[in-house]
Amino acid sequence: MAKVETGTQNSGDELLEILKALAHPIRLKIIVDLISDEADAERHCTSFGLTVTKATRSHHFKILKDSGLITHVDRGNRSFAKLRREELEAAYPGLLNMLKSSY
Amino acid sequence: MAKVETGTQNSGDELLEILKALAHPIRLKIIVDLISDEADAERHCTSFGLTVTKATRSHHFKILKDSGLITHVDRGNRSFAKLRREELEAAYPGLLNMLKSSY
Repeated sequence: MAKVETGTQNSGDELLEILKALAHPIRLKIIVDLISDEADAERHCTSFGLTVTKATRSHHFKILKDSGLITHVDRGNRSFAKLRREELEAAYPGLLNMLKSSY
Repeated sequence: MAKVETGTQNSGDELLEILKALAHPIRLKIIVDLISDEADAERHCTSFGLTVTKATRSHHFKILKDSGLITHVDRGNRSFAKLRREELEAAYPGLLNMLKSSY
């Protein structure tokens, strides 16, 4: 779990985990899609139009969650992905805008 | 060679190559060091205090160059690394400041 949510100062290690998580075409697409959504949007992992197996999809969402880029929100027996927008803006100012405008 | 210097519009592919290049502790350290230097600084690849073999060091500098993050400047029989600061600011606004402040 990324330390970004503990309120401790960032280190290069945390930034590195964010960069590693973003450095894959599927994960980058997921994040850019979430950035483009309205604030606080929650998306089911099947809603991104990814043409990969369920196991591969789950693998990518786990990396995104472990890096601190997204969180999972449970709604009944379904789980939704949510961008940790405010936390990311605070820890990595300008990152989300840069990703959206440069993608 | 990254297309960032051709003047064509960015694509997700170019952004992805930048993120991949940054997603390694040695390469991230090199870039943050270069960001912290004065503008137009040129650094020899041995000046970053990297505790890796020459072959490994060359490998990392090649990835940084191919991604478009740095360029090589030849001075006599020595080659120096230079951050492509202006081009990166134009193509990925806010990226360099974010890396420096979050590292």
